[in-house]
Amino acid sequence: MKRLFKKVPKAGKLIIMALAFNYQNVQAQNQDQKIDRLMSQMSLEEKVGQMTQIDLNLLAVNGYQNTDGSLDKEKLKKAILEYKVGSVLNPVGRAYSVETWHKIITEIQDLAVKKTPNKIPVIYGIDAVHGTTFTLNSTLFPHNLGLAATRNDELARLSGNITAREVRASGIRWNFSPVLDAGRQPLWSRFAETWGEDTYLTKQMGVATIQGMEGDGLKNPTAVASCMKHFIGYSAPRTGKDRTPAHIPDIILREYYLPQFKAAIEAGSSTVMINSAEINGIPTHANEYLLKEVLRKELGFKGLVVTDWEDIIRLHNRHMIASTPKEAVKIAINAGIDMSMVPNDYSFFTYLTELVKEGQVSMATIDASVRRILKLKYDLGLFDNPYPEKSAASLFNLPEYGVAALQASRESITLLKNENLGASPVLPLKKNAKILLAGPGADNLPSLHGCWSYSWQGNNSKYYPSTTKTILQAIQEKTGKSNVTFYGSKEYNNEVNFATESIFKNASAFDFIVLCLGEDAYAEQPGAIDDLDLPVNQLKLAKAAINTGKPVILVMTQGRPRVINSIVPGMKGIIQAYWPGTKGADAIADVLFGDYNPDGRLPFSYPAATGDLVLYDHKFTEKIQETAQGFEYNGYKPQWPFGFGLSYSTFEYSPIKVSQKDFSGNETIKVSVEVKNTGQLDGKHSVELYSKDLFASVTPDSKRLRKYKKVAIKAGETVTVEFELNKSDLEFVSQKLETVTEPGEFELMIENQKVIISYK
Amino acid sequence: MKRLFKKVPKAGKLIIMALAFNYQNVQAQNQDQKIDRLMSQMSLEEKVGQMTQIDLNLLAVNGYQNTDGSLDKEKLKKAILEYKVGSVLNPVGRAYSVETWHKIITEIQDLAVKKTPNKIPVIYGIDAVHGTTFTLNSTLFPHNLGLAATRNDELARLSGNITAREVRASGIRWNFSPVLDAGRQPLWSRFAETWGEDTYLTKQMGVATIQGMEGDGLKNPTAVASCMKHFIGYSAPRTGKDRTPAHIPDIILREYYLPQFKAAIEAGSSTVMINSAEINGIPTHANEYLLKEVLRKELGFKGLVVTDWEDIIRLHNRHMIASTPKEAVKIAINAGIDMSMVPNDYSFFTYLTELVKEGQVSMATIDASVRRILKLKYDLGLFDNPYPEKSAASLFNLPEYGVAALQASRESITLLKNENLGASPVLPLKKNAKILLAGPGADNLPSLHGCWSYSWQGNNSKYYPSTTKTILQAIQEKTGKSNVTFYGSKEYNNEVNFATESIFKNASAFDFIVLCLGEDAYAEQPGAIDDLDLPVNQLKLAKAAINTGKPVILVMTQGRPRVINSIVPGMKGIIQAYWPGTKGADAIADVLFGDYNPDGRLPFSYPAATGDLVLYDHKFTEKIQETAQGFEYNGYKPQWPFGFGLSYSTFEYSPIKVSQKDFSGNETIKVSVEVKNTGQLDGKHSVELYSKDLFASVTPDSKRLRKYKKVAIKAGETVTVEFELNKSDLEFVSQKLETVTEPGEFELMIENQKVIISYK
Repeated sequence: MKRLFKKVPKAGKLIIMALAFNYQNVQAQNQDQKIDRLMSQMSLEEKVGQMTQIDLNLLAVNGYQNTDGSLDKEKLKKAILEYKVGSVLNPVGRAYSVETWHKIITEIQDLAVKKTPNKIPVIYGIDAVHGTTFTLNSTLFPHNLGLAATRNDELARLSGNITAREVRASGIRWNFSPVLDAGRQPLWSRFAETWGEDTYLTKQMGVATIQGMEGDGLKNPTAVASCMKHFIGYSAPRTGKDRTPAHIPDIILREYYLPQFKAAIEAGSSTVMINSAEINGIPTHANEYLLKEVLRKELGFKGLVVTDWEDIIRLHNRHMIASTPKEAVKIAINAGIDMSMVPNDYSFFTYLTELVKEGQVSMATIDASVRRILKLKYDLGLFDNPYPEKSAASLFNLPEYGVAALQASRESITLLKNENLGASPVLPLKKNAKILLAGPGADNLPSLHGCWSYSWQGNNSKYYPSTTKTILQAIQEKTGKSNVTFYGSKEYNNEVNFATESIFKNASAFDFIVLCLGEDAYAEQPGAIDDLDLPVNQLKLAKAAINTGKPVILVMTQGRPRVINSIVPGMKGIIQAYWPGTKGADAIADVLFGDYNPDGRLPFSYPAATGDLVLYDHKFTEKIQETAQGFEYNGYKPQWPFGFGLSYSTFEYSPIKVSQKDFSGNETIKVSVEVKNTGQLDGKHSVELYSKDLFASVTPDSKRLRKYKKVAIKAGETVTVEFELNKSDLEFVSQKLETVTEPGEFELMIENQKVIISYK
Repeated sequence: MKRLFKKVPKAGKLIIMALAFNYQNVQAQNQDQKIDRLMSQMSLEEKVGQMTQIDLNLLAVNGYQNTDGSLDKEKLKKAILEYKVGSVLNPVGRAYSVETWHKIITEIQDLAVKKTPNKIPVIYGIDAVHGTTFTLNSTLFPHNLGLAATRNDELARLSGNITAREVRASGIRWNFSPVLDAGRQPLWSRFAETWGEDTYLTKQMGVATIQGMEGDGLKNPTAVASCMKHFIGYSAPRTGKDRTPAHIPDIILREYYLPQFKAAIEAGSSTVMINSAEINGIPTHANEYLLKEVLRKELGFKGLVVTDWEDIIRLHNRHMIASTPKEAVKIAINAGIDMSMVPNDYSFFTYLTELVKEGQVSMATIDASVRRILKLKYDLGLFDNPYPEKSAASLFNLPEYGVAALQASRESITLLKNENLGASPVLPLKKNAKILLAGPGADNLPSLHGCWSYSWQGNNSKYYPSTTKTILQAIQEKTGKSNVTFYGSKEYNNEVNFATESIFKNASAFDFIVLCLGEDAYAEQPGAIDDLDLPVNQLKLAKAAINTGKPVILVMTQGRPRVINSIVPGMKGIIQAYWPGTKGADAIADVLFGDYNPDGRLPFSYPAATGDLVLYDHKFTEKIQETAQGFEYNGYKPQWPFGFGLSYSTFEYSPIKVSQKDFSGNETIKVSVEVKNTGQLDGKHSVELYSKDLFASVTPDSKRLRKYKKVAIKAGETVTVEFELNKSDLEFVSQKLETVTEPGEFELMIENQKVIISYK
């Protein structure tokens, strides 16, 4: 990876650090004065316009039917001059070329900075999720779920930084990313956008992503403003359906859903997007307690708060807590919203203007929001140059990005099963093996990329770069075309049976079957399901493959863990590839044929059934299962547990050493373990430290991930991995909603090693 | 039903009512004085003994291995004389005869009232759920879930009263019933013990049951003390696993889980049992807020609070919030527990005695609990006569009870599908039809009774009365033995395939197949499942039946809705029978052959998949399902909705009439509708009034059941059904956790009729 870092240009960090304090202070003062002056000149309508974000369809020729990004000049004037709109988002329906984006942004800014009284540039925002979703030929990384499997924060940082570069290269400086929602409900259709079920992993990876996006400084052509989303509790709908009610008591919210936002705010994320759904009966966009008391006061967030899509008017027409659309605006703005992603009309502008005139929303509220918006525009250099920057455009799609994406995909891939065939494991395959390739994911780009891939749903193959490979193509590159034969469907279809007979009738002519199953691309609510079971027709295909008697390798590309327990026993090898992105097929082929030694670890508990919802950090009462005779310790019995992942090597752990078994106050202790690669191949390995509070005033979790460190270990070598631990690493949320570390004993666990320490 | 009421002896209610006030006051004064005097003579150890409840195994010869209820005199002395135990519960493992119970109770009381210093009788408690579980030859009613389907509160009252009689006839005066938990998580293994998903229905039925148990007056031989359980939130484990954590925010707790306890306390229930699990990280047995602030202060409960099984020591060894067993006792008693269902040793006695001496539990706390326990014993007449009462024993197993049980089973049965065969529906069947009967439930008693049926798990056929019929026997009575042939397994076995080929090879010789599927008996945690899908081998049996081409009638006996969507289309008729009890087979046969016109309505949303968890009272955001093109109103799409249930008749509704469309303050309005039986058969029908708040400060539910009334309508006749409605029928829990009715518009719905009213 070192080669990569050298090639990627960086701002001169040392110099900046030396001058930083004074320079930044002066800058801030100047900027504040400029904002004061500007605001003193702005009319109410201009201010409300700044708080208004519209979708590009309102500017485009033919609106939602537009396909080429061409803008309608009259619509543009209406938006920018009449309604004084301060922000625009997203393309109409599909990815555009860098050039099209430049044309769009230029046209908009031309009007904003040349024809409006105060020449305030527009801020363009976009959903650039796992790479630059809406720019053609961008580099797409594994979705967050796959990045979490890498246990490599640096890959998350790189994904964030490369995304920032390609977004900025497109002329856009605000990215609605990263998701910080904990993925504790696998039915949820946005599960792939989460970092899995663990709060610490989410926090570490989320912060790394934000640093990747903002760390170079917002004025730098390698940075964009990030947007923490979705504040808060969005990922926990009771039924798993997107944008539906969650029941989250405060203590649970603070234990599992809040720490990642706290850390992200401390890491300097500039903006936050609000959860579209409701928690405990209160739509989050109307929840003054969460938006003011928690977000502003408790977490000290100073940046910009933007709604999600249409979420103000939905307080009236979906949540029914506002009896009119105007009341919806009043409730949301008074609750703490700075900017409304309206996005489809100008009613927000009209209502908010009226509300201020009627005294129902105070001018102070408006001013505070507008100040935040203008500050972000200053911070991003939009007042210096609102147009697409050449310095940024030159950084689009550099070869290094592909290298990084490939590494991220490789490290995400999680080997779940590798049964012996004779004396040795079935994987890796030899490159001269005869392979029958089948399954809807085998020659399919969308199922390698999932949601937010060149379109919202990601399921339109025609927008994908011609250079992106399918699994078939990547395998062909390894083995030559003559050694691999693809049979059957190229598409997911949950309703129709695959032609299993014709697919496998020649199976005897092959050494192995590689079967690619899982999920097609989908995003948000259209991805709703009621059952995690893999669709019946895919299960039938798998059973037919197993019935051939040939060894079958299952490759799963999927956004959430589809239940496969009925076919797991028949599979010789199983590779979980998540939605691995642009280089996903290469990475899968690398692992299949041993060009990469897999090191991914599951960031979630892979369920054995739809109702198998026990998480790795369950309570003891969830670990046990009473029978009529007594009880058994089999309450946590997923298909594979959180953290599971095989390697082509094996690793042995020494007993854990701690620098002191008793500690107190703010002392830091050192926890170390020696890890030996006892296999034949060099490999990377994530060493993971868990803790358990033996007794606590709130029922303690059985296990919590506290630290992880990924290390490369050559075959036969031993490395020592050391972690530092202090009381804050052992804390939990008390009944009083305070974060505490209670005196007492704690068990530390690293792989199969355990030790008890005591905090006083 | 009128015949039944006359035959059942009743206390002279009119006389009691006339004298009630003065008499009760004097009684209470006398009783208080007696308790004062008694308590002044009791040692600390005697007081702590009163708070101790042990299981009968501690007294029985061979402990848990005992099979005949014989007591060990030394063990008895240890319990009653040494540890001064005040309460005993349940049998060892199985039901006993009335005589055995009398012998047990007599031996215990002999020691308690003759050999202890203060002669305080023991109070015996028992789990008599859906009838007198642990007495041989008792009458078992449908489980609460089936009773809820009847929509007939009087049947719940009768079930409670007949249970009280048979419990008291056994010499026992305290029944741990009814369950008041709302059944909103169908994976939960105690779902059958709930009244389904609706809070109002739970409240109405629960109160009727309590009135049935306590309404005759606790001194009366037809009454026992009831026990509201399980306070609170027990039915909502996040994963559906029994006794595992629930996440329930206060507002949700108060909206869906609390009103039934409030109503039950107002109805006079004497005792309450606490939820064994934890809510929001706090084990309920340690939750001072719920036990003192809510239960005692807010709800004004004055009665006795008992733990569930072993739930104090489990604060240490399962919940890990107490670092020692002694600390567990301290936490629970200080949180508000009066009596500990210890039940397996005397450590509670020892620890609590020490804690009082050490000043860690106050004497005032002990005295308050002991006073409640003694009061209950006085109220139940135990100080007058602690022995089994002849007047009660003569009321065991009267013929009327069977009549009531049959009626309850009949009204519970819910017809879910009745497809036309030619011009008319497949059901009812003609009695001379040739029937092939198959399925594990066809000749099986446990699957008609479920949990708590002559044993805890209910799965031991040998304890069932010889007079109880299986479905096979009940059908044979209707049709004669020659018209029905039973093929195949008599037992549920989820692992092995049924011999489907041999079962159906003669299908062509029959007119119909009646297939009995569902669940075997199970109770509590041993009934845990990870998936609602009907087990694969039963689905295969169903598909084989369908494939014969003969019309198949599916009869489901089950404690929770197992998912059957893949076989529903192939079935001509589907009968949902819940766990219908002693007369369940007769009732099923009555409906199959038209001797009873079915009128049950589902008390839950029957899921179409395990993850299909949207409830009938969902929010609007759960009703919709976004697609990539727009959205559809299909977010609530269960297999069958809450309230669904067919009849052999049809019913037509007139438009709703309201006495006034605008109302205010405490006004009562009348809402009426005319219902016509347009079918050929007389039938009963539950008319159900729902409301929807159009806009509210908390997102309003799409629909809430507010009233129901079951009426008998003769073929061709019309009846008018009138409901009274006031503001309290439209209330909800606000963000401030207050119960409010906000001014505004409400939609009222009765079947397919709607009207808008306005509250000011």
